[in-house]
Amino acid sequence: MAHFRIRFLPDNLETTVAAGKTLLDAAREANVYVGAICGGERICGKCRVIIREGEVEGESTEFLTRDEIRRGYVLACQVVPITDLLVEVPPESRLTGYKGIGVDSEQFRDFAHRGAERPPAALAPIVEKYFFDLPEPTLDDPTADQERLLEAVSKRRPGPLQMGLKITRELPRVLRRHEAKRTSWKWKWDGRVTATVGMRADVNEVLCVESGNTADRNFGLALDVGTTTVVAHLVDLSCGTTREAAAKYNSQLEFGADVVSRINHARQPGGAEALHRAIVQDVETLIEDLVQRAHVGRGDIHCVVAAGNTAMLHFLLGLEADLIRLSPFVPSATSPPPLRAAEVGLGIHPRGILYTVPMVGSYVGGDITAGVLGSGMCDSERLALLLDIGTNGEVVLGSREFTVACSASAGPAFEGASVSCGMRATSGAIDSVRFFQREPMVAATTVDGSPPVGLCGTGLIDALSGMLLEGVVDRAGRFQVARARGRFRENEEDGQPEFVLVAAKESGGPRDVILTQADVENLVRTKGAIYAATDSLVQSVGVSFGQIERVYIAGAFGNRLDIASCVNIGLLPDVPVERFEFLGNSAIAGAKMMMLSHHTFDEARRIRDRVTYQELMVDQAYMERFTSACFLPHTDLSRFPSVAHRLGAHGSGSVPAGA
Amino acid sequence: MAHFRIRFLPDNLETTVAAGKTLLDAAREANVYVGAICGGERICGKCRVIIREGEVEGESTEFLTRDEIRRGYVLACQVVPITDLLVEVPPESRLTGYKGIGVDSEQFRDFAHRGAERPPAALAPIVEKYFFDLPEPTLDDPTADQERLLEAVSKRRPGPLQMGLKITRELPRVLRRHEAKRTSWKWKWDGRVTATVGMRADVNEVLCVESGNTADRNFGLALDVGTTTVVAHLVDLSCGTTREAAAKYNSQLEFGADVVSRINHARQPGGAEALHRAIVQDVETLIEDLVQRAHVGRGDIHCVVAAGNTAMLHFLLGLEADLIRLSPFVPSATSPPPLRAAEVGLGIHPRGILYTVPMVGSYVGGDITAGVLGSGMCDSERLALLLDIGTNGEVVLGSREFTVACSASAGPAFEGASVSCGMRATSGAIDSVRFFQREPMVAATTVDGSPPVGLCGTGLIDALSGMLLEGVVDRAGRFQVARARGRFRENEEDGQPEFVLVAAKESGGPRDVILTQADVENLVRTKGAIYAATDSLVQSVGVSFGQIERVYIAGAFGNRLDIASCVNIGLLPDVPVERFEFLGNSAIAGAKMMMLSHHTFDEARRIRDRVTYQELMVDQAYMERFTSACFLPHTDLSRFPSVAHRLGAHGSGSVPAGA
Repeated sequence: MAHFRIRFLPDNLETTVAAGKTLLDAAREANVYVGAICGGERICGKCRVIIREGEVEGESTEFLTRDEIRRGYVLACQVVPITDLLVEVPPESRLTGYKGIGVDSEQFRDFAHRGAERPPAALAPIVEKYFFDLPEPTLDDPTADQERLLEAVSKRRPGPLQMGLKITRELPRVLRRHEAKRTSWKWKWDGRVTATVGMRADVNEVLCVESGNTADRNFGLALDVGTTTVVAHLVDLSCGTTREAAAKYNSQLEFGADVVSRINHARQPGGAEALHRAIVQDVETLIEDLVQRAHVGRGDIHCVVAAGNTAMLHFLLGLEADLIRLSPFVPSATSPPPLRAAEVGLGIHPRGILYTVPMVGSYVGGDITAGVLGSGMCDSERLALLLDIGTNGEVVLGSREFTVACSASAGPAFEGASVSCGMRATSGAIDSVRFFQREPMVAATTVDGSPPVGLCGTGLIDALSGMLLEGVVDRAGRFQVARARGRFRENEEDGQPEFVLVAAKESGGPRDVILTQADVENLVRTKGAIYAATDSLVQSVGVSFGQIERVYIAGAFGNRLDIASCVNIGLLPDVPVERFEFLGNSAIAGAKMMMLSHHTFDEARRIRDRVTYQELMVDQAYMERFTSACFLPHTDLSRFPSVAHRLGAHGSGSVPAGA
Repeated sequence: MAHFRIRFLPDNLETTVAAGKTLLDAAREANVYVGAICGGERICGKCRVIIREGEVEGESTEFLTRDEIRRGYVLACQVVPITDLLVEVPPESRLTGYKGIGVDSEQFRDFAHRGAERPPAALAPIVEKYFFDLPEPTLDDPTADQERLLEAVSKRRPGPLQMGLKITRELPRVLRRHEAKRTSWKWKWDGRVTATVGMRADVNEVLCVESGNTADRNFGLALDVGTTTVVAHLVDLSCGTTREAAAKYNSQLEFGADVVSRINHARQPGGAEALHRAIVQDVETLIEDLVQRAHVGRGDIHCVVAAGNTAMLHFLLGLEADLIRLSPFVPSATSPPPLRAAEVGLGIHPRGILYTVPMVGSYVGGDITAGVLGSGMCDSERLALLLDIGTNGEVVLGSREFTVACSASAGPAFEGASVSCGMRATSGAIDSVRFFQREPMVAATTVDGSPPVGLCGTGLIDALSGMLLEGVVDRAGRFQVARARGRFRENEEDGQPEFVLVAAKESGGPRDVILTQADVENLVRTKGAIYAATDSLVQSVGVSFGQIERVYIAGAFGNRLDIASCVNIGLLPDVPVERFEFLGNSAIAGAKMMMLSHHTFDEARRIRDRVTYQELMVDQAYMERFTSACFLPHTDLSRFPSVAHRLGAHGSGSVPAGA
């Protein structure tokens, strides 16, 4: 069988693939990311690459403009090499921008540290070290070594105790020195030892016993396994401070951008194992990065607390995830028992424990439990709403009295998929947009200041808000070409109008950043789904939006959102802006709180147990609410008085999108 | 290096050894047992073999008579081959008799079934199977698979629950069938499953989940790991009955007959591992025997409950045992946590649990805890004494109110060591002796009816009792040659008198069965040590022997003892014979009770905790009591009124030793 050498720019990575393999296969082989959001299902059109040298075969006109085809663009999942190739991965398909932010930059570390960094009342880590100076046995007190140790541990950490056989086997040697004595040796007592004690379900377990006092070498890893990003914090359990933070893209992105396409990939032979390995490898990479920067031994990490959505946690643990996507949406487990991290392949202390933040259900995961915990909403008398806006939007409503939650399949529009110029928040992504003047002028910023390539979620929301206020779209989301004829162009294929947000010739970017009528419709459906979910919860408990005293925005997406833009398009309810609070990465903050106090861990289990999950998939009222919400901001404008006011004022001059 | 071929008769087993290896090494290599009680330390003189062909080198006159040397006898541990050899292992050095009894014969199985076969109030095995027909998940009840199962288990078995990751991973497939559907497959619910649930410390653990109803396939192994014998019972946990029983010699005998010589062996390089492997292999052999006879799969055995003395349990678990022999006599552990049987190499269900009966201390082990449990003495208002007579004699005194225990290093005389013609209860061992007429005539029986070769413990006690009553020894244990001049002979080496109990020419045995003055002194010291231990406990709690309402005799040795002989020599206290009760193998009976009820298992832990251990090794009063007890029956004859009566009557005709 013929083989071809494929070299990828700008990384200059090379691989050899057999004839018949797609260019996407080759990229995976070479470990080059090409933004295949749909996982090679030929749906998203995001695996755009440019053929610099050589020939490919296959249909590749979908999702590409005539101009792009002329410039050598193909979709990597749709073409197979027929010669050796030199391939360029253009900026919009790369991970670089984000990756740089993730691992090292201050910006990301600041973000990662944000949120509910409220220290628990008292430091009582789930894995704690205790130093003892155990008294030497005597004839009056010949208590066995194991019992002598466990009795001392019990005084510091009451409750049932377990200890592995290997530790008992070694204990006499840890508690004594061997003294060589001519041909023989002699035991010499030295009871100064440090015991590391962790929590396993309702039992404490002695994880290791070391000679001397090592109580200051005790670390834990807080983990947020996101569908897109994996974040890890290295926490010093002896004092409760965060020593280092790191993040990287979830390598499973190669297998699909959303949970359902990954579960589908897991159905293929070897697929589940590949997904499991990918995420474990990501965490391993983060651990390596953290221990090197913090000068900590992997063996000094005694626990991992993993938050994440239900599917991601299933992949991390290697659990069957297929039933999550099928009605009635049954996870394998929502409270997996604490287990050895080594059992899933994480290289911390050999007996170190992996704790999973308890999940509510298939579509309300451990990240939400952690967020609810971090927000403190279950401790408060004030009615609060918590939103995590993503491909799945999770919404929680509650207070000390009750907690209800639901999940809406919003679609990936805010993640950059299903929108022509949508992209992740990587290099060149427009993250904020302001409109000026009646023939609208647009000012945009990108996440890293480089020329604009496309729009990430926050940019899309700003753009839609501005287009609505400027009348470029009407409240049904329909283009009003007459309002800004100069900014519309015709699609070269079908002649349909496209709104040019930023023209390449003005911005210096590689292409015009545009929005099509279909793009707007996708965005409206996405925001409609999330609003309808919120609406459903509010109606189900018989309160009004006005009674909501706090709106928490969780997730990495959250703290770059412009609240006013979100209210303008009807994504968020129209409550006073001062009631909104960004939690930052509340998943990791919650995981840290649980790590630093086993009482808080118990509380997380109680929170999980008290959350009432509402399934919207089969709720006819939800469908009606969704239909009503597929307007800008809503069919019932009275729900959005401030937007009504702005829309009424819109004829009278420039209105910044974020005003 | 030269090598020699050594062939052993009667087994006809052959091996090749390097020059310089002893004949005992060769025997171990060839897997031939040669009765090396001391483990090759040149102390016991029991590794007697006969050189039929070939030459050996080395000192070998110790322990052997001139006649024996002429007939080719050597001690295997003291000679090295210098040519190829043909070696005969004589009956007194073989294991055959006992082995036959142990594994198959009705006699042994009857013994093994004996004792405290009191069914617990209610059957509640430590590992139990539960069949469930779990309802299919719906949109109204999308509880995760794991939580659905654990909720059902919790209803049957309240308390905290653990479950391993692997089971959660497999659960969706156990709870559903896969239905092939053209190119794909489909899940189909089938909630009928059986969960196996065991107890681990204070937590229950789901050990496995199987499709369908397998509740009747649940077995446990009760184990008594004795220094000499290993006994195993296969118990049907679904109904509480014992399906099969088996026993074999402890293969560690090769490394020494008593606990201390084995611990010494463990100090040598590789020694501890060899002892651990030997006992694990013994248990494996018993398991194989049991599952074949009972037609049970190894995977259907879900637990092992192991009783035994502290050192044996340490060897089974691979724990450091060295400190047991050194003051202040500290075990590695007295309550080892339940652990996977696979972790020590036992081939039952992969997640099956090995439970250890809690031990009181270094010299009062789990066999005693089990015996106390089996006797029920801790539940009774009546004051009871429990004795386990062996190389270490363990004594327990108590009632519902209190429990005290101690251990006396009695020495191995009753096991056959340190007595010229002493031997184990194997083929040709005299197990009972009766004296008739004034010039005493002796009638003896052997364990298997074959011609007498030596004396096992019960025979020795009967012999000493008869010699005392007939005046052949005085109360100080000194030979009274004039009383039976015809039965004494002179030692061919030193001219010292030897009492010929059974002459070879009368019995047809291979040698005269004799007792020397030194033999009698060893026996007196042994019984004195045990009586003094009993005496110490009685004195320490301020009661009198007369208040003891029950005397339990534990251990395999127990139920062949003649109580009257024991009282005559002052081994057992002089209380009415109807107060004595043989418990049979109370260790295994206790282990079974614990296996069949986790409440009883908890009770065993409570019993262990309430026993007060008295260390005699450093007790000056004990030494004085021991000195007083080194008389027949005691310096203070008033403690033994019935013996005083018999001794007074002894001039008036024949007195059967056991009368």
